[in-house]
Amino acid sequence: MSTIPPRPAPGLRADYRRFLPLTLRWMDNDVFGHVNNAHYYSLFDTAVCEFLVGRGILTWRGSDHYMVVAESGCRYHSEVAFPDQITAGLRVMRLGTSSVRYDIGVFREEDPAASAEGFMVHVCVSAHTRRPAPMPAHWRDALETLLVEA
Amino acid sequence: MSTIPPRPAPGLRADYRRFLPLTLRWMDNDVFGHVNNAHYYSLFDTAVCEFLVGRGILTWRGSDHYMVVAESGCRYHSEVAFPDQITAGLRVMRLGTSSVRYDIGVFREEDPAASAEGFMVHVCVSAHTRRPAPMPAHWRDALETLLVEA
Amino acid sequence: MSTIPPRPAPGLRADYRRFLPLTLRWMDNDVFGHVNNAHYYSLFDTAVCEFLVGRGILTWRGSDHYMVVAESGCRYHSEVAFPDQITAGLRVMRLGTSSVRYDIGVFREEDPAASAEGFMVHVCVSAHTRRPAPMPAHWRDALETLLVEA
Amino acid sequence: MSTIPPRPAPGLRADYRRFLPLTLRWMDNDVFGHVNNAHYYSLFDTAVCEFLVGRGILTWRGSDHYMVVAESGCRYHSEVAFPDQITAGLRVMRLGTSSVRYDIGVFREEDPAASAEGFMVHVCVSAHTRRPAPMPAHWRDALETLLVEA
Repeated sequence: MSTIPPRPAPGLRADYRRFLPLTLRWMDNDVFGHVNNAHYYSLFDTAVCEFLVGRGILTWRGSDHYMVVAESGCRYHSEVAFPDQITAGLRVMRLGTSSVRYDIGVFREEDPAASAEGFMVHVCVSAHTRRPAPMPAHWRDALETLLVEA
Repeated sequence: MSTIPPRPAPGLRADYRRFLPLTLRWMDNDVFGHVNNAHYYSLFDTAVCEFLVGRGILTWRGSDHYMVVAESGCRYHSEVAFPDQITAGLRVMRLGTSSVRYDIGVFREEDPAASAEGFMVHVCVSAHTRRPAPMPAHWRDALETLLVEA
Repeated sequence: MSTIPPRPAPGLRADYRRFLPLTLRWMDNDVFGHVNNAHYYSLFDTAVCEFLVGRGILTWRGSDHYMVVAESGCRYHSEVAFPDQITAGLRVMRLGTSSVRYDIGVFREEDPAASAEGFMVHVCVSAHTRRPAPMPAHWRDALETLLVEA
Repeated sequence: MSTIPPRPAPGLRADYRRFLPLTLRWMDNDVFGHVNNAHYYSLFDTAVCEFLVGRGILTWRGSDHYMVVAESGCRYHSEVAFPDQITAGLRVMRLGTSSVRYDIGVFREEDPAASAEGFMVHVCVSAHTRRPAPMPAHWRDALETLLVEA
């Protein structure tokens, strides 16, 4: 009897809306010769922030609102290892008034199915009240371009 | 109307079974002056592996079984920043035949409640078949010392 | 005939002025089961910044001057590996008008000799001109407490 | 009177022999909004190891010889920051019987001059004696393709 929790099948490239090639680093590989579980989150974070920086949502020179990470997670389907070529897929799965959930798929070489799939929940915070606040309209507009209907 | 998902309250030190002081690094702090979301996973991984190495479960010199990370996740409750002193709390929340789920709490300075709480699921794999396999008995014995009854 | 460059002998704890225990992380270990060469610099950076933050020299909330890293380097004498306990030793070897050179020794467990020795050169920059500028007097006073006469 | 050490001018792309595009990550940026000094070494290490893995010199499945890092260093000329596109240039500056010194230049976007220049010294070690040993002939042949006459 297996006690391993049942898992959804890995997502496919077609499930994602935006793709970003990323390069692995030698030190991403751990003792077992594959990318350490923690390093995936630096890839997820990068795929999300590359989009947000490009749309002017994420800036580090002061703004009225900023995003904070409330939650993240990852399912590891199969290993990747430097010097594999990888691509991060990005989509938005839930877009609320003040929060957004991104999914990120890590695709190895030409594999159609994800080697790992993660998510990140961003909450929009007012720089003035430091409390959750509705996202500015142009943030929502940008994020909607990544939205996948469930 | 808030769309922020309801969240469980942060866990307390008393909820954990083993504690490991860890030191933050200057570069853990990101542009916002606090520890980047991805770095937490290097702390979780360290808290788990420090236990496993100490009990002879995790070794990198060859063994009949090894652990692979199947899933991980984190809820971020409040920020920590270098040079805060932190302590990682560790417990086992589910111990199956071939898998184990750890919870890790990151506690800042003397705070009783966790700043962040993560989990990691390890699956025991046979080095011969490269398939999930029941954990050796002494692995289970060691992990049971961390087990918290739900 | 060996072509390996002649190397100075490893420094000793007595050669340093300030000591900071640091914890290694599981993912610091690379494929060879020891701390990857690049991770040492995160330890050096941390030893220096812990001192500077504590003395109010390094702040990320705006100041008239800030430090930029102009140069760094490391000699690796012997390996360290998670979960080794390590201590970083810190000293100042050259204190100029607008620059300072720190040495950092990484000491493994109770070893008297350094496993690795690095250096970092900080240049004081005016936030207004963005050009090198003399260090404020209280910065020099703080750094002089670490100064070792050559 | 400036006490900043005189520095060589930044190297140019034409000074390097091999080029590797690398992607920065969000968390490479530190509190100051630019790539932290320590992260450069993960880029250097990657540029070197990508070459060595491709030539079969660096493997993690057992071999008679392996390379250990004896020394490294970096001069920081100008800042880079995520999401800048960067390219690592690689060359060999000294090729001895049992050691090799690589230089690595980090080039930002289309800049002709390096933003940072580092070096790494590898010593060939016999897996049997764990002592420095002459490099296998095909390692030298591969490294000679990167050699720049001084």
